[in-house]
Amino acid sequence: MSAQNQYPGYPHPFAAEPLPTQEMIDLCKKHTLYTWSANDAVNPLPIARAEGVYLYSPEGQRILDFNSQLMSVLIGHGHPRVIEAMKHQLDELIFVYPQTATQVRARLGKLMAEHTPGDINTFFFTLGGAEANENAAKAARLFTGRQKIMASYRSYHGGTALTMGLTGDPRRWANEPAPPGIVHFMDPRPYDYSFGNTEEEVTANHLKYLEETIVMEGAHTIAAIFRETVTGTNGLLVPPKGWLQGVRALCDKYGILLICDEVMAGMGRTGKLYAFEHFDVIPDIVTMAKGLTSSYFPLGAMGMRDKIADHFRKNVFWGGLTYNSHPVGLATAEAVLHVMLDEGMVENAARMGKVMREHMDRLQAKHPSIAEGRQIGLFGMMDVRKNSKNEPLAPYNGSHPAMNALAKFFKDEGLFTFVRWSQFTCNPPLCITEAQLAEGFDIIDRGLAITDAVYEG
Amino acid sequence: MSAQNQYPGYPHPFAAEPLPTQEMIDLCKKHTLYTWSANDAVNPLPIARAEGVYLYSPEGQRILDFNSQLMSVLIGHGHPRVIEAMKHQLDELIFVYPQTATQVRARLGKLMAEHTPGDINTFFFTLGGAEANENAAKAARLFTGRQKIMASYRSYHGGTALTMGLTGDPRRWANEPAPPGIVHFMDPRPYDYSFGNTEEEVTANHLKYLEETIVMEGAHTIAAIFRETVTGTNGLLVPPKGWLQGVRALCDKYGILLICDEVMAGMGRTGKLYAFEHFDVIPDIVTMAKGLTSSYFPLGAMGMRDKIADHFRKNVFWGGLTYNSHPVGLATAEAVLHVMLDEGMVENAARMGKVMREHMDRLQAKHPSIAEGRQIGLFGMMDVRKNSKNEPLAPYNGSHPAMNALAKFFKDEGLFTFVRWSQFTCNPPLCITEAQLAEGFDIIDRGLAITDAVYEG
Repeated sequence: MSAQNQYPGYPHPFAAEPLPTQEMIDLCKKHTLYTWSANDAVNPLPIARAEGVYLYSPEGQRILDFNSQLMSVLIGHGHPRVIEAMKHQLDELIFVYPQTATQVRARLGKLMAEHTPGDINTFFFTLGGAEANENAAKAARLFTGRQKIMASYRSYHGGTALTMGLTGDPRRWANEPAPPGIVHFMDPRPYDYSFGNTEEEVTANHLKYLEETIVMEGAHTIAAIFRETVTGTNGLLVPPKGWLQGVRALCDKYGILLICDEVMAGMGRTGKLYAFEHFDVIPDIVTMAKGLTSSYFPLGAMGMRDKIADHFRKNVFWGGLTYNSHPVGLATAEAVLHVMLDEGMVENAARMGKVMREHMDRLQAKHPSIAEGRQIGLFGMMDVRKNSKNEPLAPYNGSHPAMNALAKFFKDEGLFTFVRWSQFTCNPPLCITEAQLAEGFDIIDRGLAITDAVYEG
Repeated sequence: MSAQNQYPGYPHPFAAEPLPTQEMIDLCKKHTLYTWSANDAVNPLPIARAEGVYLYSPEGQRILDFNSQLMSVLIGHGHPRVIEAMKHQLDELIFVYPQTATQVRARLGKLMAEHTPGDINTFFFTLGGAEANENAAKAARLFTGRQKIMASYRSYHGGTALTMGLTGDPRRWANEPAPPGIVHFMDPRPYDYSFGNTEEEVTANHLKYLEETIVMEGAHTIAAIFRETVTGTNGLLVPPKGWLQGVRALCDKYGILLICDEVMAGMGRTGKLYAFEHFDVIPDIVTMAKGLTSSYFPLGAMGMRDKIADHFRKNVFWGGLTYNSHPVGLATAEAVLHVMLDEGMVENAARMGKVMREHMDRLQAKHPSIAEGRQIGLFGMMDVRKNSKNEPLAPYNGSHPAMNALAKFFKDEGLFTFVRWSQFTCNPPLCITEAQLAEGFDIIDRGLAITDAVYEG
């Protein structure tokens, strides 16, 4: 840590010098809204700059970004090649309305079709994950002529009315009643219930349960099943062996579309470009955002198989948005995808995922309060338990003083991650090195003394 | 027109040279989705670059942007001061998650509070108008504890499920059933029905009709009344004298929030920074997007009066999005607002609005097929009629061959505007000059021979 001011580039076009940190915080809290918490309770993290896997406070504290902000800055902060491409697009053409043809739209559409498996060849560009999911639901309903959408309880799909309705977790409750036609089903790995003792048993039992739910709802009324390919904030849940293939088969049997929400799991996070590539399945629609631009520019997308794209060549897609295919957004996504491929970041995610696995196993062996670490590639989460029965330290949708203390320890030690309920996340940018991973897990290692101290045995 | 290639800045970071125009169009149509029309019917406009009030095709055709793209590029294309500020922010700090404090967030929050009337001092930043309206509805429901939202038939509020539900026009139909709790009311100026013969009569009758609707719905169940301050695509409807004040009074009487949707009408378009400033009313929530960044970056916002912001200091706002307060988006809005103020664009919109009025009156006097021109500032629309009874040339939600021919004439002559039903828009960037306005209305003048030829008398 140094006392040196970290703001580069002053004088600024519209500010002679940076505001003092406390004044900056006070103005943010006075004039802008924070969400998911009462605003008086928010203690916003002041950030001056960011580079690679590190954030820097105005006072020069270096913070290891172990959550890629919102699991979203996949290529790391401030990548010069992406910045260069964005500046280039600003000089060439900033914005035209969606019923146009632009160089960057032509290039990115082709590039994404080339790198997306199966016959997912057509893309609709939105501004983020919520709108990608909104439009995926709309496409499924218009394509099938059916109204219902099924989604699972342990899920998050976005902050709009419809995507909040699709969301299964407690963030939905205050937003209800939801739009009509949403049906929630239990996950193969529920929170405090089990479909069986082995992966095979869970898959077999859950698929029978799911099919019965489909039949009870009226299979011909169901347009789509929504699913985070690997569940994100609700537990980092990799589907059990054979499960996604089974869901695909049920969808085929009943003419239901399979929509994989890869807003969090996609774009290399799991060690493959798309998470569904782990499961030998092609969804009918895949949605993405976050990593698509590494958050450098707001962009979401829905990718459609040919049968769906062909439908909308002959039939109207009754939706749209002003910034569909924003040229600067597309130029950002193009640059991010090139950087990811050229610099082997997907492969690095797979390789570093193995290193993360070793760290997680080591911490589980060492710390009695760790129930489990789960990861696929660099998509990781650890569960904290209160006793040998593996009961979570905090209740569902609740907190525990030791978890709050753990969050404070991480923050003080310069580790940025998300602590929620009885879990914390391990989702660094895909460019992370082995040494930087070790740096993060060292802080976690020391922090777990706090939860070990309340472990009941 | 020249045959010179218009693409600046090649070699591009990811493309050696521009694609030929037809290949560019073909790739866009093959790999990306167009909306609001069957994709086979879309004939996308190829655009290479844009500057001020002009777009340029790859072959060098200069096109006067008489709709600011989607009524959104208010300061004109490619403004160098905004580009400079965006590049500066890219170098300083691109993205951090929303629970942070950043220099630009502090500066923009303060700047917007200073320039927004009344006690609207707190802002929530989204990615566009739909999400601003989604969150305004959410805020109103959470603040009041009531479920219903009222909105008018002649309106458009966005492409998500909820904002499509709030929308009154035919774009809603294919998206229904809407989320629960939305009630539509007739506008003070319906499509083919009248509340009276004078503005005063219309206002008085409509407010009685509206109050009776409120009472019938149960005033205590209504969280908010949504309203485009000046209705946009549904007819460029300035509310009659005293009407918005009357709605404000009804809202106060029944504890209902007044939400002004200024996504299209705000940010100087009408000759004042906010359209509600024309009507001596302060809404409880104002939503904005489009002009907020002049489309240079996707950004929307909802501005809240102190009572609402204070509520969310003590209570959770159950929503959010990854890109709430994206630093580059905020830097863009900051630069756009400074440019608009420094260069007197709001005043220019008021001044040029008077010039537009003269052109509209002149064309109406000259062309029998013009029923009316409506404008407030540089927010304008002209209605085409088929006979002296002022019947629209095309039916509601329909088309007419002469309107299609008029649209083609505008396109061929290099005038970019929106022709829909029996109307076409006149919404140029706010930096337009008197000579450029005359250039646009000269093309319109010549084009109206087409609709005059089918005028029935």
